[in-house]
Amino acid sequence: MRSFTLREIARLINAELHGDEHHQIDGLASLQSAANRQLSFIANPVYKKYLSSTSAGALLIAPSLASEFSGNKLIVSKPYEAYAILTEVFSNRVPAPTGIHADATLSETAVVGANVSVGPRAVIGEHVILGDGVVIGAGCYVGADTEIGADTELMPNVTVYHGIKIGKHCLLHSGCVIGADGFGFAPKAGGWLKIHQLGGVIIGDKVEIGANTCIDRGALDDTVIEDGVIVDNLVQIAHNVKIGRNTAIAAHTAIAGSTVIGSQCTIAGAVGIVGHLNIADNVHITGMSMVSSSITEAGSYSSGTAMSNTQDWRKNAARFRQLDQIAKRLLKLERDKKL
Amino acid sequence: MRSFTLREIARLINAELHGDEHHQIDGLASLQSAANRQLSFIANPVYKKYLSSTSAGALLIAPSLASEFSGNKLIVSKPYEAYAILTEVFSNRVPAPTGIHADATLSETAVVGANVSVGPRAVIGEHVILGDGVVIGAGCYVGADTEIGADTELMPNVTVYHGIKIGKHCLLHSGCVIGADGFGFAPKAGGWLKIHQLGGVIIGDKVEIGANTCIDRGALDDTVIEDGVIVDNLVQIAHNVKIGRNTAIAAHTAIAGSTVIGSQCTIAGAVGIVGHLNIADNVHITGMSMVSSSITEAGSYSSGTAMSNTQDWRKNAARFRQLDQIAKRLLKLERDKKL
Amino acid sequence: MRSFTLREIARLINAELHGDEHHQIDGLASLQSAANRQLSFIANPVYKKYLSSTSAGALLIAPSLASEFSGNKLIVSKPYEAYAILTEVFSNRVPAPTGIHADATLSETAVVGANVSVGPRAVIGEHVILGDGVVIGAGCYVGADTEIGADTELMPNVTVYHGIKIGKHCLLHSGCVIGADGFGFAPKAGGWLKIHQLGGVIIGDKVEIGANTCIDRGALDDTVIEDGVIVDNLVQIAHNVKIGRNTAIAAHTAIAGSTVIGSQCTIAGAVGIVGHLNIADNVHITGMSMVSSSITEAGSYSSGTAMSNTQDWRKNAARFRQLDQIAKRLLKLERDKKL
Repeated sequence: MRSFTLREIARLINAELHGDEHHQIDGLASLQSAANRQLSFIANPVYKKYLSSTSAGALLIAPSLASEFSGNKLIVSKPYEAYAILTEVFSNRVPAPTGIHADATLSETAVVGANVSVGPRAVIGEHVILGDGVVIGAGCYVGADTEIGADTELMPNVTVYHGIKIGKHCLLHSGCVIGADGFGFAPKAGGWLKIHQLGGVIIGDKVEIGANTCIDRGALDDTVIEDGVIVDNLVQIAHNVKIGRNTAIAAHTAIAGSTVIGSQCTIAGAVGIVGHLNIADNVHITGMSMVSSSITEAGSYSSGTAMSNTQDWRKNAARFRQLDQIAKRLLKLERDKKL
Repeated sequence: MRSFTLREIARLINAELHGDEHHQIDGLASLQSAANRQLSFIANPVYKKYLSSTSAGALLIAPSLASEFSGNKLIVSKPYEAYAILTEVFSNRVPAPTGIHADATLSETAVVGANVSVGPRAVIGEHVILGDGVVIGAGCYVGADTEIGADTELMPNVTVYHGIKIGKHCLLHSGCVIGADGFGFAPKAGGWLKIHQLGGVIIGDKVEIGANTCIDRGALDDTVIEDGVIVDNLVQIAHNVKIGRNTAIAAHTAIAGSTVIGSQCTIAGAVGIVGHLNIADNVHITGMSMVSSSITEAGSYSSGTAMSNTQDWRKNAARFRQLDQIAKRLLKLERDKKL
Repeated sequence: MRSFTLREIARLINAELHGDEHHQIDGLASLQSAANRQLSFIANPVYKKYLSSTSAGALLIAPSLASEFSGNKLIVSKPYEAYAILTEVFSNRVPAPTGIHADATLSETAVVGANVSVGPRAVIGEHVILGDGVVIGAGCYVGADTEIGADTELMPNVTVYHGIKIGKHCLLHSGCVIGADGFGFAPKAGGWLKIHQLGGVIIGDKVEIGANTCIDRGALDDTVIEDGVIVDNLVQIAHNVKIGRNTAIAAHTAIAGSTVIGSQCTIAGAVGIVGHLNIADNVHITGMSMVSSSITEAGSYSSGTAMSNTQDWRKNAARFRQLDQIAKRLLKLERDKKL
């Protein structure tokens, strides 16, 4: 377990230290659960109620709240950012050992940079390019002609098809599948005719992709995920979708083919976005909404109904089927009254 | 194929046997499809209509219905429970062979109990602890410092990250990912700052987890799945969620971060539950509902609208956008009338 | 890169060629992005606006539009079908090498047809039957007694449990799981009693299954996917579901247990279909709809609400809870008026 004095931590995050600079910290914890050798933080004033009772050895705190806490404190303008930086410092993950594991299967034509780690049971195809510092977890598959940028890490059991480009400093979680065929078929008499998907996937730098998420290859052009995009688990990104820089997509969201999403968007969980739409920059979509038309202005958008007990809901849901009639009958009453 | 006499089966499930005790049974089947050497059951009176025509060699039947069937019968108070017990007896699954397969990659520091099975191409990390009778399927990955309790089975191609605790008698289906990073990022100028996820996942005893389901590790504290929880396929359980004892969660449901769900809940398929909520014990959520506020009382809850043909639905869905106006106009008419 | 003259291409798709029969084509592209050595197509009159500006070396075009384009053209009755055929011709995917890779683990009792390819780190269980021309990708697992028909391909990291039947000419994408246990449990005092799933999965010919999709094995009888069905990514098909011939299912859809779906249906993305229903042939379900009752007639069906900005939506969603009251109050006003 790593241990730092408050003085050392203050330097790491450029904080103003009030209190015992020799106090030892060996971990992070929430205000309610922190012990004396742990550092906590307050980012949301809602949690002020815990300031008097916390046992934390020190606190990351904003200047505006600093006077309300009497213990050791590290004053920073953005406590949540400082906390994020320190999560890396206190991470308990052991880095993967450098080198190609004896139980990996690596094509002779693969081009491997410096300080690369390829785990046991991983399979690296022909003409794959792995940049410096790339980590390929156990059991991963990387298809022919795929290129992975420096310092990108694939956690165990990731699948990347052939001809894919992934940028630098990305993190792909287990079970995600990059570059499977887009769902393209031409109807024909007596069945479907497969449209072979000839495009690829281009993923920028500093992209994080969640567990069991799927990003399909393009039909003719590529599917594109720009720099800084973060994607949660079990998300579906269909062929030829483009996701703009720094957009965040929460779990279980599905984006249909050829839709273009702007930058800095935040798309909540289990959202559905139909194909061939354009979504502007800085759009927020609330959870479980269905987006069935393009959005041209920044803002927050929603669909769905509010939850109630099932007995009431059944009545209201049945009335939903009469809504157009209700509106027309209301209009008739209003008109009749005026006569 | 295993074969039992009705007498032997009656003993296994403690049933009262009426009919030919030497009748041989070598399988289970539904009332409609059962043949003479198969045993069937009636758990729901709706199926009484099949009693006269079934070809089943014998029936599991409740005392209240026993007089309505003239063939061989095994009378038990809970026929569905008796059937469940017998599905294990007649299971055709061949148990995995004990031992470490020559094609597995096992760390020298792993601690392996008695009668453990590790399949081909599985990778077991450093300091992993596998309890007695654990089965690790082909191609599984178990990260460093993870502990798996006695008699728990991982089907092929399961991924468990580092530092996870899984209890006894659990069953994890293929493709599930336990312990990937929670979706935690701090916004900063020009992008997102990753919050490294320092917590783990604690899974109790007798938990079943479906194929391709994801359970993320906690940010600081652990994500917790209590004893007896059953989770279907493609479910998302985000960081720091707690699921109470014996709760059941159907496929495609997504539960956002830090939500606490009580015990004995039944959550239907494709439900979305937003983060930081509390759901009481014994709550039922119907399929595809969106839960956006805490639920403090047991009962059944729903959201959404009823299905109709698309043409009608379009009109009603458009009127939904006027619903607040409709309510206000109605109120105005009511008030005007009173004047 | 493959290259063909227009004359050669015209023969492949039986087209009427107008223009330079020696013009070389080495790829396909959209009207907007095609270059001189690329072939494009117009399947939808909406794109007529691009006909005057496209740089494509030639066009697949219907007789009805042919006069509107002056460049090289291949006239065919169904340009989209012709394009689909040519995507196979121009596919850049390198076929898997024939033979069993030295790093695969193949049971001695497996029966392997002619020209089979088994990739590195794949595991093939006892008594598995692989038909002629079958391709098993790297890291796949195929359980005991499973049978895979001729020319079917499993992309890397697919999991197929024991006792499954897959037909000919199928394509299974990475991460899909075929034959995991259906979600069957009997409630009992103090928890759940597992119902072991004794059925299998039967998949017909020419079926395509998307990445990370799950198809569960049946409880007693089999789960059945008929010929020509196409399934997108992250779809859940529960135990004992039957999907009729040539039905298409888009990503993130979930179908609960024992539901029977007809042939030629098109089910959009993120749809939820509850268990034990019957859906007729030729039914279309729009995206994110909840299907909670059987559908007996062909046609299009929907549920949900239209999207709006979140502020307006909140008001309307709250009013949804009063909808039954609104309908009753409206009726009262109408009745009072008549008195």
